[in-house]
Amino acid sequence: MNDEGSSAGIAPPEAQKYRALLFDVFGTVVDWRSGVIRDVTAAAARAGVPVDAARFADRWRAGYRPAMDLVRCGELPWTKLDDLHRRVLDELAAEFGLDGLPATDLDWLNTSWHRLDPWPDSVPGLTRLRSRFVLATMSNGNVALLVHMARRAGLPWDVILSAELFRRYKPDPETYLGACELLSLEPAQVMLVAAHNGDLTAAAGLGLATAFLPRPTEYGPAQRKDLAPAGDYTIVATDLTDLATQLST
Amino acid sequence: MNDEGSSAGIAPPEAQKYRALLFDVFGTVVDWRSGVIRDVTAAAARAGVPVDAARFADRWRAGYRPAMDLVRCGELPWTKLDDLHRRVLDELAAEFGLDGLPATDLDWLNTSWHRLDPWPDSVPGLTRLRSRFVLATMSNGNVALLVHMARRAGLPWDVILSAELFRRYKPDPETYLGACELLSLEPAQVMLVAAHNGDLTAAAGLGLATAFLPRPTEYGPAQRKDLAPAGDYTIVATDLTDLATQLST
Repeated sequence: MNDEGSSAGIAPPEAQKYRALLFDVFGTVVDWRSGVIRDVTAAAARAGVPVDAARFADRWRAGYRPAMDLVRCGELPWTKLDDLHRRVLDELAAEFGLDGLPATDLDWLNTSWHRLDPWPDSVPGLTRLRSRFVLATMSNGNVALLVHMARRAGLPWDVILSAELFRRYKPDPETYLGACELLSLEPAQVMLVAAHNGDLTAAAGLGLATAFLPRPTEYGPAQRKDLAPAGDYTIVATDLTDLATQLST
Repeated sequence: MNDEGSSAGIAPPEAQKYRALLFDVFGTVVDWRSGVIRDVTAAAARAGVPVDAARFADRWRAGYRPAMDLVRCGELPWTKLDDLHRRVLDELAAEFGLDGLPATDLDWLNTSWHRLDPWPDSVPGLTRLRSRFVLATMSNGNVALLVHMARRAGLPWDVILSAELFRRYKPDPETYLGACELLSLEPAQVMLVAAHNGDLTAAAGLGLATAFLPRPTEYGPAQRKDLAPAGDYTIVATDLTDLATQLST
């Protein structure tokens, strides 16, 4: 446990216990809110409709958890995140007066989640971490979404792992344990990196190592949650370059 | 159809029909025989036992299809390729007098399939193809094997797709169609690239585009099969750089 966010570095023998790092993606690696605001703004301009793009983005993100929970509890059959996003988008487009947009514009807007920019430390931090560890996504985003995002943003993943592979959404245990199984590693050899306490708590309960880093503006200037670690995590870092330093890469 | 192996290039509108290329890996992208011979030679030297390493490699590869077929027909439950390789290795080690090796040496030898070198055109060809297409493996190798291979060999995959994700081995249709589904593409938007007629015939039957390239020494100097295309494939190329040229990348 290192909860001072020290950059002294975990000694190499400790770091060598871990073979792979799993990354939460939305919020932890990429800034979803700015990217969605950017594309909602463009779509609204094309529609000639004034829209509070930040509110639209926040509502869209807020709709994702209930939609996913319908899948998690079995009320909806397996549905990939692109399609859950589209269900929420269609409701919001009607509410915000964007439902007059051509279908191709709505299709484009729905893929704004494929076109998110990384936080400034993400690519440099991941690039350093990759010198020692296998880097895998472990995201609720579907595979195609994560592939398009990685190509556009230059995210140097070794392997794209997704809820879609298990047809279960995080924090269902099948996702974390399924990722370890695909990597042929024990949970104790794998570290989940996330900016979200709920995600880390679920992984820690299954025996994975954990690294928390805060993304204090993920939810905008009024963010109140996930500003600090709420558990006894393996590492607490300030960002992905600090994590790279703490893991001696 | 272009069966002259012309390098004039498919016109961009044709190439734009395809969004992703799926690659067979063993034989098509990497030279399994030389890599396995290299590591069997090293293991035999450590054991102080004279071994015909080429014959060992050929027998090991020959044992893979029957072992996989036990899974395909349901006689064995799902078993990842590393574990099928190990079943065959344990038999061959006894037969060739290598069963006296320490377990850690046999573990190391079993991962020789993770340490295969690419053919000389593979990395340059893939790098060019990646500028236009999503590049995915579609291999019977398990995920960890493919990840280790890609890191060591510098193979620039966008996404590792594997039989392991579907718990079905090629040429079962669930593998090709499952890959298209994970990429959120129709089969006609996806091209399988392989040096093996059987693999391509299965994919073509499901509506995928196909590219054949010969690897005339994959099975050593006496190779007799897969020297030429046996089907009406979308593209026939001489190697991966020629494929990149034909696809205008």
